[in-house]
Amino acid sequence: MSTRIGIVGYGNIGKGIELALTQNSDMELVGIFTRRDPNSLETKLNSPVYHYSNVKDYVNKIDVMILCGGSATDLPSQGPHMASMFNTVDSYDNHDEILNYRASMNKAALNNKNTSIISTGWDPGDFSDIRVGINCRIIGAKVYGFYGLGKKGGLSMGHSDASRRVNGVIDARQYTHAIHKSIKAVRSGKNPELTRGEMHWREVFVVVENNSDRKRIKNEIISMPGYFEPYKTKVKFVTQKKLNKIHANRGMYHDGIVIGVGKTAGGNKSVIEYKNEFESNPESTANIMINYARACHKMNQEGSFGAKNTMDVPISYKTPMTFEELIAAHMI
Amino acid sequence: MSTRIGIVGYGNIGKGIELALTQNSDMELVGIFTRRDPNSLETKLNSPVYHYSNVKDYVNKIDVMILCGGSATDLPSQGPHMASMFNTVDSYDNHDEILNYRASMNKAALNNKNTSIISTGWDPGDFSDIRVGINCRIIGAKVYGFYGLGKKGGLSMGHSDASRRVNGVIDARQYTHAIHKSIKAVRSGKNPELTRGEMHWREVFVVVENNSDRKRIKNEIISMPGYFEPYKTKVKFVTQKKLNKIHANRGMYHDGIVIGVGKTAGGNKSVIEYKNEFESNPESTANIMINYARACHKMNQEGSFGAKNTMDVPISYKTPMTFEELIAAHMI
Repeated sequence: MSTRIGIVGYGNIGKGIELALTQNSDMELVGIFTRRDPNSLETKLNSPVYHYSNVKDYVNKIDVMILCGGSATDLPSQGPHMASMFNTVDSYDNHDEILNYRASMNKAALNNKNTSIISTGWDPGDFSDIRVGINCRIIGAKVYGFYGLGKKGGLSMGHSDASRRVNGVIDARQYTHAIHKSIKAVRSGKNPELTRGEMHWREVFVVVENNSDRKRIKNEIISMPGYFEPYKTKVKFVTQKKLNKIHANRGMYHDGIVIGVGKTAGGNKSVIEYKNEFESNPESTANIMINYARACHKMNQEGSFGAKNTMDVPISYKTPMTFEELIAAHMI
Repeated sequence: MSTRIGIVGYGNIGKGIELALTQNSDMELVGIFTRRDPNSLETKLNSPVYHYSNVKDYVNKIDVMILCGGSATDLPSQGPHMASMFNTVDSYDNHDEILNYRASMNKAALNNKNTSIISTGWDPGDFSDIRVGINCRIIGAKVYGFYGLGKKGGLSMGHSDASRRVNGVIDARQYTHAIHKSIKAVRSGKNPELTRGEMHWREVFVVVENNSDRKRIKNEIISMPGYFEPYKTKVKFVTQKKLNKIHANRGMYHDGIVIGVGKTAGGNKSVIEYKNEFESNPESTANIMINYARACHKMNQEGSFGAKNTMDVPISYKTPMTFEELIAAHMI
């Protein structure tokens, strides 16, 4: 029997889930839930759209709700509300609040015999698993993450938004770039102490209002605490047309690598690296989240209730294939 | 309380486990079990050595037995025998027999409320998990494995042994090399059909008896079915002194990469790669097996009995760190 899926929120990730479900024959989309007017929403595949306020009518008609809202404002309230009615999968990524979020998801899910897998996606998610895996395989290795490995860098929505909030800015896109000589130092096995600014630099394309003070705008961007201040940041003023062209070229591309290097007890070097390159960050993230929807359904059926992180989920729960099929396909 | 470990078999892997346990403060070595005369065995760290025939005296004194024997002759009988008395971890790697091996391990372990994690290590093991993970993340991607990425290639014990069995051969070492233009083709996203011989070539250094027929020896090696016949193989005749020098230089180095490339449902390219480089293949393999010993002990304490593969084991069981510690260390 297939897993019946609901999508909450129809942004980039929600659209990615809608598409990705077509590649997973053991999954079936029941509907998309939105706070907008359902009639106004044009979906990529003409999927059914319902208003968020009617979601409780779908209890027992949906096996897993995939929550596609953001971590800042959507998930803290939406997550526990959904977990009280449905099994859920989300991509919560506010590191400083994960313990609190997990606790509130756990309570809501446990009280209602639901299962909630939080913080899935590629980072946190796949990269978390790899970091933990390296940490217990190469004892004493620091584990590093670099993002934006290629010439295009990787689009950061958060940093783009932050740049847009500067007075006089009409539009902006921020691409994160890895500093490759630091990757080289990590691979050499030196386990260097690297500041954030030694690992990445930031490239911001900005469209500004006519006659605005470019010097002030540049200064406000590069000195923004947390977002830009720790980094070398290049601010590039461009026309909207040029920015659109850059975005058309670079799109939602993002990539990253996790690297750990250390020595065995016998003094021999060990290196583990995990890399992904995603032309569409949200579509590839959607593919990952769907694996966790499959696992979530199975774990719930087996009576494993409450909140889980990716590291609590065995790979055998994420694949649609049986052990015998995986052996026959030479996966094991 | 620490996990009490026994080691069965004192070859390269057994030695690696003995050393690696010193890096894992939650583990304690009870003893090494050997079929040789225990008094004749000099261990790296002067660990206690016992005869294999006395192993049953250690039931309840050892939490997990790490089985370091080979898949061809040791594990098929030793594995189920041990699983009837102890929790076990092994690195069984005979793909064609894994289903049978798992069935017999499962029966022995279940009957005695033990837990056995089979086929751990880096391949099968870590690479299996990655293959399955890619397979359910990038739908339709073929998943490729390449070994021997650097100039040194990677030492294959099996192919070295096979070469030594040729009449007139005194000593031999075989290094496997990846064919890099095939890696490039895979990364491009073509999902090419590649024969075994298009993925790797083999380099054999051979020491032969004086006056032996080198042409015959070369032919016997390169035409050996399964081992060499499918590959381009370079046979290099060298002196024992030269071979020793090559071995001193290349050691037990091995590396490998798993790559999967495909498209999302929206038509965008996704690439996932996982690579390891191990200066000492057996020591790094030992580090991985110890993670599974930790998991094995925990799973058994929770009543999860029978045979498991790596894909059945969540990462949270492999790490000695708690969820809170992992969050604090920015692993998640």
